[in-house]
Amino acid sequence: MGYRIGMDVGGTNIVAGIFDADGKLLRRSKTRTVKSSSNELLEQLASLCKELLTVEQISEELLISVGIGLPGFINKETGLVTAANLPFNDIPVAERLNVLIGVPVTVENDVKMIVYGESLKGAGKAYSHVLGITLGTGMSSAWVTNGSLHGGAGGLAGEIGHIAFADIPYVCGCGMTGCLETVVSASGVARQARDGLAAGWVGLLADRFPSELRDELTSKDVWQAYMDGDAFAGQVFQRTASWLSRVIIPSVALLSPDVIIVGGGVAAAGDVFFEPLRAYVSENLHPLYRERLLIVPTLLGEDSGIYGSAEYAARQRIA
Amino acid sequence: MGYRIGMDVGGTNIVAGIFDADGKLLRRSKTRTVKSSSNELLEQLASLCKELLTVEQISEELLISVGIGLPGFINKETGLVTAANLPFNDIPVAERLNVLIGVPVTVENDVKMIVYGESLKGAGKAYSHVLGITLGTGMSSAWVTNGSLHGGAGGLAGEIGHIAFADIPYVCGCGMTGCLETVVSASGVARQARDGLAAGWVGLLADRFPSELRDELTSKDVWQAYMDGDAFAGQVFQRTASWLSRVIIPSVALLSPDVIIVGGGVAAAGDVFFEPLRAYVSENLHPLYRERLLIVPTLLGEDSGIYGSAEYAARQRIA
Repeated sequence: MGYRIGMDVGGTNIVAGIFDADGKLLRRSKTRTVKSSSNELLEQLASLCKELLTVEQISEELLISVGIGLPGFINKETGLVTAANLPFNDIPVAERLNVLIGVPVTVENDVKMIVYGESLKGAGKAYSHVLGITLGTGMSSAWVTNGSLHGGAGGLAGEIGHIAFADIPYVCGCGMTGCLETVVSASGVARQARDGLAAGWVGLLADRFPSELRDELTSKDVWQAYMDGDAFAGQVFQRTASWLSRVIIPSVALLSPDVIIVGGGVAAAGDVFFEPLRAYVSENLHPLYRERLLIVPTLLGEDSGIYGSAEYAARQRIA
Repeated sequence: MGYRIGMDVGGTNIVAGIFDADGKLLRRSKTRTVKSSSNELLEQLASLCKELLTVEQISEELLISVGIGLPGFINKETGLVTAANLPFNDIPVAERLNVLIGVPVTVENDVKMIVYGESLKGAGKAYSHVLGITLGTGMSSAWVTNGSLHGGAGGLAGEIGHIAFADIPYVCGCGMTGCLETVVSASGVARQARDGLAAGWVGLLADRFPSELRDELTSKDVWQAYMDGDAFAGQVFQRTASWLSRVIIPSVALLSPDVIIVGGGVAAAGDVFFEPLRAYVSENLHPLYRERLLIVPTLLGEDSGIYGSAEYAARQRIA
């Protein structure tokens, strides 16, 4: 029962943490992601591990596992990783890092690791059946039941951002039109606001983002405008909640989760997003579900992913 | 490793079967359900068990378990069973039958047992992740992953018939308006056809069901009219498939099942129902899912439930 490291490798930053055998976080670091080449990124991950060990004065032999969460697809048969926002295109990340670090490495999708972390140590800690949804650049989900992370056929469970609806007009990166993720994600919130401004909304958001600045508008700006009193900005979050409820409602009926945890940029908006979301879900489900269902934000902030990946990798070793 | 009995207790008929230790069905029976009182129904179930043993010349000591599937809600904490179409209202069915038969009895929801049976011995036999949906009087689902039946918080997983949509105008038995089950179920198919006839459809169905006979129209009649060439009848199944796809699409993205098994009266319609269903689901999901996903009818006919309940009860004993 030694120490374990977890890393959440994003397109912008890497969060890394070292945990003791009881799962207590001893130290964390946050660094810009090196994206020049796969080799350099792998070297960066290895040296982040070594730094954590050095600073905590833990000898390498006491490290039992390293877990990595990253925004990509991991082929379970070949171990090859492909991630659009990282320099990984069919790279055997776990194998390569294992050589560099000398410790078994487990690589998983970042959203799965975030939800796994929240289910064990965060907002899902007290519950058996946890559905997690993240709304960041994209939108996806993970399902943890009795401590076990569900992968599904081909490891493909969780692509809820790519459900198409006829009344969503946007073309998605995946090639389909109408994917939920084109509106329900941080980028989707910004897109909705830009479209509204183009259609002639007036108010704070319009004053702050004249047409020449409009491409820079983010979901945070929409939230800030709402906080400062812009009515249109509030409507964007309400409409996003309504769209999201289209996938949450069937999920509840299908699986009866104890809790649905929503994370990512959109969830940071708080009540203006969660209150209409809870209302839409309640109104359209069998009364039996209404009293018990919880829909809450993540608890561990940027650290959900390192809690998840550290523990996930350690359990692979112990099992 | 002795013999086990499974029973599927419906509002009209009871199917019962006795299986050997390898799960082979030795004998089955089908009988009208006695609905006069809970005592008389319990006596009937006990004597059906004894008959199967007698006819197969198996001594009572070699029977290890009895599994019952029934259309109702089973409180896991108290063991009390409530079933609208059976004379059970807060009756401790397992406990009472155990006294009558002298063997451990397990009671579960009938749809869960049907899907469990199909997942082990029927259309899901070759797969790890099986979603089953039944479209009979009502509509519900069950999820079996790696041989384990999912219950969810409060044992409430599977009430997919009670997801409400704004464009479904009917009031449901549960009190909500717009529940999927009001249109996607055998009763829903009949309702859609009756409504169409009231709105002036012409053709075979209209000829066969003048207004004074319209209340007797069933989903089977709609199917027969389609087979005989009635275009409106075919449209009813296509529309039903389209409505059903609204819950199947998010389910696939969420869980990535290997196979979705659809049973009950509506599924008996065959291609006129399954072909548009597969098309709607494919069109609105990420391309990754399209190639691998199977949507198929049940394989075991009326016996899915007895395969499921016999095996489910036996595993509770062995575990």
